[in-house]
Amino acid sequence: MHKKDLIKAHKRIGPYIHNTPVLSSKLINEIAEASLFFKCENFQKMGAFKMRGATNAIMQLSKEQRTKGVVTHSSGNFAQALSLAAKSLEVKAYIVMPSNAPQVKKDAVKGYGGEIIICEPTLKAREAAALEIEQSKGATFLHPSNDMDVILGQGTAAKELLEEYPDLESIFTPVGGGGLIAGTALAGKYFGNGCKVIGGEPFEVDDAYRSLQSGVIESNRAMNTIADGLKTQLGDVNFPIIQEDVERIIRVTEKEIVESMRLIWERMKIVCEPSSAVALAALLKEKEFFTNKKIGIIISGGNVDLGNLPFFL
Amino acid sequence: MHKKDLIKAHKRIGPYIHNTPVLSSKLINEIAEASLFFKCENFQKMGAFKMRGATNAIMQLSKEQRTKGVVTHSSGNFAQALSLAAKSLEVKAYIVMPSNAPQVKKDAVKGYGGEIIICEPTLKAREAAALEIEQSKGATFLHPSNDMDVILGQGTAAKELLEEYPDLESIFTPVGGGGLIAGTALAGKYFGNGCKVIGGEPFEVDDAYRSLQSGVIESNRAMNTIADGLKTQLGDVNFPIIQEDVERIIRVTEKEIVESMRLIWERMKIVCEPSSAVALAALLKEKEFFTNKKIGIIISGGNVDLGNLPFFL
Repeated sequence: MHKKDLIKAHKRIGPYIHNTPVLSSKLINEIAEASLFFKCENFQKMGAFKMRGATNAIMQLSKEQRTKGVVTHSSGNFAQALSLAAKSLEVKAYIVMPSNAPQVKKDAVKGYGGEIIICEPTLKAREAAALEIEQSKGATFLHPSNDMDVILGQGTAAKELLEEYPDLESIFTPVGGGGLIAGTALAGKYFGNGCKVIGGEPFEVDDAYRSLQSGVIESNRAMNTIADGLKTQLGDVNFPIIQEDVERIIRVTEKEIVESMRLIWERMKIVCEPSSAVALAALLKEKEFFTNKKIGIIISGGNVDLGNLPFFL
Repeated sequence: MHKKDLIKAHKRIGPYIHNTPVLSSKLINEIAEASLFFKCENFQKMGAFKMRGATNAIMQLSKEQRTKGVVTHSSGNFAQALSLAAKSLEVKAYIVMPSNAPQVKKDAVKGYGGEIIICEPTLKAREAAALEIEQSKGATFLHPSNDMDVILGQGTAAKELLEEYPDLESIFTPVGGGGLIAGTALAGKYFGNGCKVIGGEPFEVDDAYRSLQSGVIESNRAMNTIADGLKTQLGDVNFPIIQEDVERIIRVTEKEIVESMRLIWERMKIVCEPSSAVALAALLKEKEFFTNKKIGIIISGGNVDLGNLPFFL
């Protein structure tokens, strides 16, 4: 993978995404004792960075592939991102969703024009349903995070951030399936000035932390975290990049996630997902290593269920 | 009052306030069938437009007056705004608060450097406590909304909005004590191009609507509204401006306020107060009159209690 691939990906998706704003908060800077620059992907189209990778992946398909559509299985932001990206590019999107997915998620996918295929709520059933669509419709399967074109698309957020603030010492991202942090690591390497990329991960789903320790892709046992976007697992495409180019991963507790989320909502007056707050929580947890530095933080998304917030403690 | 007074007020407070961003949402525009431009005073210092008026009012005091400090009675955003504005200008602020004010509000005032004087939770006790500070300390009393310098300060938000979008057909604001809408009406008259200023007001506290009908300042009886910033009453300084320069006031139900607030949070990914949502609710209520127009909306503030949100319906 080369610098020019990331440049090309950014040029390719530019007309279909927002160059999202970067916000700062004097009060959060005082708490962190550092200068933080929040890249607000919660203001991205459909409300998350996933729009970048989905758009890039579809645009890399051949004309014939595009005619037959794309398929994925997801109940999260990638389902919405693929639906909206496909719609913008006049491609059909098939979204396999488990029968227990919340109605609000199904409505969002439908609203963006995706066709939903309901299956049993097991990974096996999801994979089988997606395979069936690939075979019967000729649609191309796109993975939410373990796909080089998706990774490059996600990396464009950090590329934009570094274009605006070239001298960031580090960039923090949450770690879920590994697409965002792998793309960010490439952007940090190619466009930063010694910029280190650091992941934040909940203790409850610390597969990436353990994978870096053991050198093989580890799985999560329990997944008892509020950061529901981070329950997914690393893959063989993004893991080598993470091994090579990510500085380290800092684990945080559920309490630390909620406290950071509250800081972002109360002090910055923006709506972000629990997963997004994990990056800030990781920085605050080890802030003594970052005193007076300029730090980038990727706010990954803002799609939350307002009827189910964690602030009633 | 002249155009040049508003220009001078804006120049005066410029270094002490943010020129806040203007956001739009494709989805909300589709719902409104119009082009909406939201002036985000929730991103203002201390989280509300009140920072503008408080700063302007303090800066208009003489050197001797500033030495002796300022006093107000408020448990809302003006208490915080006066505390922070006074701190920025190295002036002492005395804030009279009722004994039943929420701890979070007291903490915020203290955090911004205001000195709190607790009194019984009646208007009479609040006025008496403020008078006592005026007399014993020589401090100058500043009213949150019925003060020409405060009104001019609040008008600078709409002035900035019109500088960025000169051809707005209307600007909507919430109506509480009348400072914001009076200032906005002056800005619309002086800096707009036929721009009409329209108020949104909850049915539950529709004193401004009724005052415009009767021609005298009316009071609220019950005050059963979620828009707690709008329970205050018009005054003799702002009412004549509202009579002269406000196009009309549209009343909305509590359900309409919560629905608009939810739209702003979910679609724009920003945190706003219930009071702020009243302006959008008013537009949506009578949207047939504004089809395809360019409309400004003042998002007045973002200070909410995250532990007490109205989205659990």
